[in-house]
Amino acid sequence: MVVNLDRLYSDRVRNLKASDIRELLKLTDIPGMISLAGGLPNPKAFPVEIISECLDKVFKNDIHSALQYGASEGYPKLRKVLAERMISKKKVQCCKDDVLITNGSQQVLHLLSLILLNKGDTFIAGSPTYLAAIQVFHSFGAKCEPIPVEEDGMDLDSLRRNIRRLYRLDIHPKFIYTVPTFQNPSGVTMSAEKRKALLDLASEYDLLIIEDDPYGELRFEGDLAPPIKSLDKVGRVVYMSTFSKILAPGFRLGWTVAHKDILNKLVLTKQGADLCTNTFSQYVAHEYIAGGYLDKHIENIRDMYKRKRDVMLEALEEHFPEDVTWTRPNGGMFLWVTLPKHINARNMFSKALKKKVAFVVGDTFFPDGSGTNTMRLNFSFSSDEIIKEGVKRLSEVIKEEIEQSDEMMEPLAEGV
Amino acid sequence: MVVNLDRLYSDRVRNLKASDIRELLKLTDIPGMISLAGGLPNPKAFPVEIISECLDKVFKNDIHSALQYGASEGYPKLRKVLAERMISKKKVQCCKDDVLITNGSQQVLHLLSLILLNKGDTFIAGSPTYLAAIQVFHSFGAKCEPIPVEEDGMDLDSLRRNIRRLYRLDIHPKFIYTVPTFQNPSGVTMSAEKRKALLDLASEYDLLIIEDDPYGELRFEGDLAPPIKSLDKVGRVVYMSTFSKILAPGFRLGWTVAHKDILNKLVLTKQGADLCTNTFSQYVAHEYIAGGYLDKHIENIRDMYKRKRDVMLEALEEHFPEDVTWTRPNGGMFLWVTLPKHINARNMFSKALKKKVAFVVGDTFFPDGSGTNTMRLNFSFSSDEIIKEGVKRLSEVIKEEIEQSDEMMEPLAEGV
Repeated sequence: MVVNLDRLYSDRVRNLKASDIRELLKLTDIPGMISLAGGLPNPKAFPVEIISECLDKVFKNDIHSALQYGASEGYPKLRKVLAERMISKKKVQCCKDDVLITNGSQQVLHLLSLILLNKGDTFIAGSPTYLAAIQVFHSFGAKCEPIPVEEDGMDLDSLRRNIRRLYRLDIHPKFIYTVPTFQNPSGVTMSAEKRKALLDLASEYDLLIIEDDPYGELRFEGDLAPPIKSLDKVGRVVYMSTFSKILAPGFRLGWTVAHKDILNKLVLTKQGADLCTNTFSQYVAHEYIAGGYLDKHIENIRDMYKRKRDVMLEALEEHFPEDVTWTRPNGGMFLWVTLPKHINARNMFSKALKKKVAFVVGDTFFPDGSGTNTMRLNFSFSSDEIIKEGVKRLSEVIKEEIEQSDEMMEPLAEGV
Repeated sequence: MVVNLDRLYSDRVRNLKASDIRELLKLTDIPGMISLAGGLPNPKAFPVEIISECLDKVFKNDIHSALQYGASEGYPKLRKVLAERMISKKKVQCCKDDVLITNGSQQVLHLLSLILLNKGDTFIAGSPTYLAAIQVFHSFGAKCEPIPVEEDGMDLDSLRRNIRRLYRLDIHPKFIYTVPTFQNPSGVTMSAEKRKALLDLASEYDLLIIEDDPYGELRFEGDLAPPIKSLDKVGRVVYMSTFSKILAPGFRLGWTVAHKDILNKLVLTKQGADLCTNTFSQYVAHEYIAGGYLDKHIENIRDMYKRKRDVMLEALEEHFPEDVTWTRPNGGMFLWVTLPKHINARNMFSKALKKKVAFVVGDTFFPDGSGTNTMRLNFSFSSDEIIKEGVKRLSEVIKEEIEQSDEMMEPLAEGV
């Protein structure tokens, strides 16, 4: 008898769908393709020599413990150095017991969904925003209330209006999800004033804030406001960050600082989800911080990514037509291009592939499907030469698209 | 304003509870305590030298890819050598694309729960059975139908009776969860006949079988029937195993072989859960298999654990009173002790702690709370001397308990 899988699957399976971005990225795996689409750190930014030294220390000191099962909360020594770092670098008051280690920070988004979201619940997120977060919240049947992101972060007037509107409908959102610093996809950073005002608003309506901070350390210039979590006295903010951008993604290590009760629920959920995070990687990461390597190496990554951002900005200036604009982020891995209103970046995607250049269509990042004339470009991954050539190819696609759309609009105008 | 967490939590949080076993194990963390309670591999069984050699190869060959994000399905080369091994060692016909790598095999139990279980669904499991599996299924609001485990595996007459009874109540269970080889906790192995009959029964009622096989490689003697999965022509069996017992738990690597459609759903769910499994560990594990280290090292682990089992069996023979019985497993990490019917192992636990010896109370593993006169002993973790001393201490506790209960029963008998 053949298995009748439809009967056996859970209702949750209906919310599962392949990531749009992943399907598009599969198309870019062609020889000669220049992809400005991915979101990968540059492999040359991986501290291979340092990792090798850290491994030597792990083998010398405590290799048998590094190979054994560990606590679901994470390796205590790693939690301790992370708490110390959160205090000294981020002005977040916390201790070892406030820190949870997860299998990348994506895992804590999943665990948070499990402990916070019932089917039909509402959460709030910037528009545009980090796609994989929205997708995991959606996969548990939650609905997104999108709030426009301005040059200094989320539009707080719109946020207040929308929360009030939801309350009138007796809808009480659970949390606000935000990437306040060098946001993926837009590169935008939330101002210090807005950070405080956002926390005040969340407090007024008793919402949690999920503050996702993967890029905060990748600051090239300018001052940076401390995380929203640094202003939080009552445990309203769940802060998360990752080793993926400051060490290596392959180690799959993220950390979370949260209210003790939330942390406890996350730990119990993690026990069922995978017992514990990779112990071996945690020992390496501990040596990386405790040995003082991290701070030195962050400088290298910043220098490299700053140069790459500048290379991309210069190429954009040189090649892109006048009516196209873009952000100039002070850090992170992405910048954000806005095309003339009538240009649809999704329609342009297949034409770009023919010219062997790829980007991410911006509407992917808008929970409401807007942003059709936007695109995300990554500057961290490719070599300087490839960035220049990629932007050049892309500029040709854009120019052709603008010309064609102008031609199409003219006869239309005549016909009216 | 203080955060009102009760409003913010999901309904799922109500199903969360701290693992009974973990709470008990915390009590055993006392100097001088001999714990036969844990389920840990012996650290001396970790192939430290070999891991170091594999790391050298990873650094020499492809370190930058080993540190980067990887595919959610797992590292293709690791999936390929695992598929080849499933064919050659387990008689399971499969290819690379049928294999999923997860963050330990616990993760796939969690992912399977997400794609298979709605609240109120029923699944079937042996009684006793592996606790952390039952817990994760329960955490999604599913109900367990427990089936007694006999000396040659699950009681299939009881299974058929119970499925029929459920069907009469219009309850159609989703799957049968089983650890058919050197079961945790009992050490029992399912016979070849029962493996075939179980698959036939699952086919008759269109159920999936989740075959959890962490201990299959740890065979000390005798023949071993191939996995149920080897008999499966239609993809009814989801097979899973782990590197935790044959390499090291700290790498958090498990693998699953399943029906393509199930695998696809698992991959999509894993994308949301943690994007991908630790790439670095997967590269090490690939070198471990591809370099031919695994087969040689399994012999070392088998020799060590066989000796430890024999040490424990000898000590049990020497010290335990006559009316106590135990299993003599041909492999794995555990054996199972049955005390006289009127002895409650849970009551005995605190007395054992006073004598500085710990075990796991058997009723923990019975979904229906039976098995009150049973206990699980682990022989893999402790040194030979510690095993001997632990069994001796435990025998004293048991003897005292039996004496006291006899005294209590005598006056009762007189009073009748």
